[in-house]
Parts: sequence; C-alpha cells; structure tokens
Amino acid sequence: MKVFIGLVHFPVLNRRGERICSAVTNLDIHDIARAAVTYGADGFFIITPSAEQQDLAGRVISHWMEGLGGQFNPDRKRAFSTVRIAADISEAVKGVESMACQQPVLLATSARKIAGCISWENFEKRVYKNEFKCILLLFGTASGLHQECLDRCDGVICPICAGTDYNHLSVRSAVAIVLDRISRFRRQ
Amino acid sequence: MKVFIGLVHFPVLNRRGERICSAVTNLDIHDIARAAVTYGADGFFIITPSAEQQDLAGRVISHWMEGLGGQFNPDRKRAFSTVRIAADISEAVKGVESMACQQPVLLATSARKIAGCISWENFEKRVYKNEFKCILLLFGTASGLHQECLDRCDGVICPICAGTDYNHLSVRSAVAIVLDRISRFRRQ
Repeated sequence: MKVFIGLVHFPVLNRRGERICSAVTNLDIHDIARAAVTYGADGFFIITPSAEQQDLAGRVISHWMEGLGGQFNPDRKRAFSTVRIAADISEAVKGVESMACQQPVLLATSARKIAGCISWENFEKRVYKNEFKCILLLFGTASGLHQECLDRCDGVICPICAGTDYNHLSVRSAVAIVLDRISRFRRQ
Repeated sequence: MKVFIGLVHFPVLNRRGERICSAVTNLDIHDIARAAVTYGADGFFIITPSAEQQDLAGRVISHWMEGLGGQFNPDRKRAFSTVRIAADISEAVKGVESMACQQPVLLATSARKIAGCISWENFEKRVYKNEFKCILLLFGTASGLHQECLDRCDGVICPICAGTDYNHLSVRSAVAIVLDRISRFRRQ
C-alpha cells in the first residue's frame, strides 16, 4: 500500500468553527517529513492555496534541499525530499496519481467523532487485507478539516482513541501516531 | 500503571556526540503536554539544570496556567497542568515519588540500538502483565540521551521500529508514538 500525507491549511476550522486558511508552520513540515521518511511514506503534501504561504514553504524546502541546511544535516535533507506543495486537495490527488500511477483513496482524519467514520479496528482489517492500494491521508491544521474536506473524501477515520476525554493532540503528534499504527497493521 | 515522562535537556548529545545541555523548546512542552493528557499520563517533567532555561519553561507554563493563555485556551491550560520542572533526573524521580507514592522504574528511550535493550514485544508483555506499577520514561532532546542517563536507568527500550533505515523522529513524535503504544498494551 502506498501512503501519502496531505497537511491541509484550507479550508480548515478555527477555534470558533469558522472557515479559515491557516498559516504554514515550519515545525509541522520538519516533524511530519521526518515521520513520513521514518515510516516509509511515499510523499507529503503541504496543501495551501495562498501564494505567499506556498512561497514560504518553498523557501523552507529549498533551504534543506539545496541550501546550507542539507549540507549541515543530510538526514533532514532526506526527510525534505518527500515534501511537495499543492494548492488544494485536487492538486495533491493529481500529484499522488503522477507519483503512484494510481488514484488514491482519500481518507480524512478527525479529532471529532464523525457519523459513519471508519473505526480503527475496521481500518486495521482493511489495511491488513491490502484492500487499499494507495491512500492519501488528510490531516487538518488549526481546529481541523472543514466539512467541505470531509465531504470530498472516500472515508473519515475515527478519532485516535486514547481512553480519556481529552483529545487535543497536535497535528504533528497525530500524523506520527497514525503512521505508526498503519505500519503495525501492515506488518501483522 | 502510572506513567510519567521526563524530557531531558542535560546531559544529552549533540550531532558530534559531545555532551551538551540543550535549550528548552516551546513546542516540545506544548506537544508533549497535549499527548500526555490525551493518553492519561500522570506527569511530564522538563529536566534541565540551567536556571535560565528553568525560568523560561516556568514563564511558558505560567502563561498557560495563570495568564491569558489559559483564558484563551482552557484545553491547553489542562495540558499544562501536567508539566513540572526538574533540575535533573534525581529531582524528577523525587517528583514522581511524591506524586505517585512509589519509586518509578526508570526507562530510557533511544533511537540508537543499545546492547541489552528491552524489545517492544517484551515491553508489551510486561506492561500487559502489569509488571510495572509506575514508570518514568526518559526522552532525550538534541541527538539523544548521554550514556550517563542510560547507565542510571533500569532499562532502555529498543528504538521505535518502523521498517526503514531512517530513524530520525522528532522527540515530540517519539513521545506521541510511545504513549500510543503503551495505551494499546494496557488495553489489550
């Protein structure tokens, strides 16, 4: 199964549930790229329609791919080699299609329980049975993916169950946990 | 099983393998505190002997516990309620003892394979059998825990196995993954 990650900055929700475009966060790129390469993910898309934010992300990537960053830390350069920029989810899907030669199953993640979401047990079985050939996992920044994003996905995975009533992981932590779980599902 | 986390800033290694004291990173505190509360961990110690760095960490904690931060984001305030500052590992152990009324088993984590490290399979069995009543998990910042830290621990858990030759997770990601795995071991 090919695994791609999409970090969505628009349309996402703010704390008041309003539709916003969030800012690209430098450490998101680093942490998620490092986790992606550690778990052998096939690509990581930073999704934002903002030209300025795309430029910012592009400069960060260049620093590590072509600039002094990569000379100083080749491991980080390797992590950044997975990072791509996409204006929207459709562009990320096209990117996956060109890299994986197939259409990805589009799966959203959410910290909120969405009606009809795919349980982790069910997701585990489907990954184990190799039902998914290629997935693009969408993670929302800020307070999570807007309903528009959820609506266009093939499925939404249930929140990470942790046995408490607190569910406010950073998106960086959430990506790491999801990749670790998928890695286990594939091995079992 | 009570679970405590210690984020060690001294003595740790830099990229050249030298013994250093690393700087406290704001986002480490946020991400690890959020993961700790999500997974019901019992406390999170920021371990640094530097008075200036303790002061910095203390100001960040105050902002969220007593200042405007907590008013703006009560969820974050709840996460920060788990955070303590300790000058060294001994002080963190004493802190655990006073909070948990028992001595913790001191377990180090490492991205490097250490001779005699506890495999994840073995750790899983021991957690499942409730062999550990209370653990303090140490995570190293920078390029990881110095040998001195490893030597004083009761055990070192093997690196997070992810099936690739790349093993450069951020400490934020590593803590999230370890807490998620432990949560699963306890439930199974």
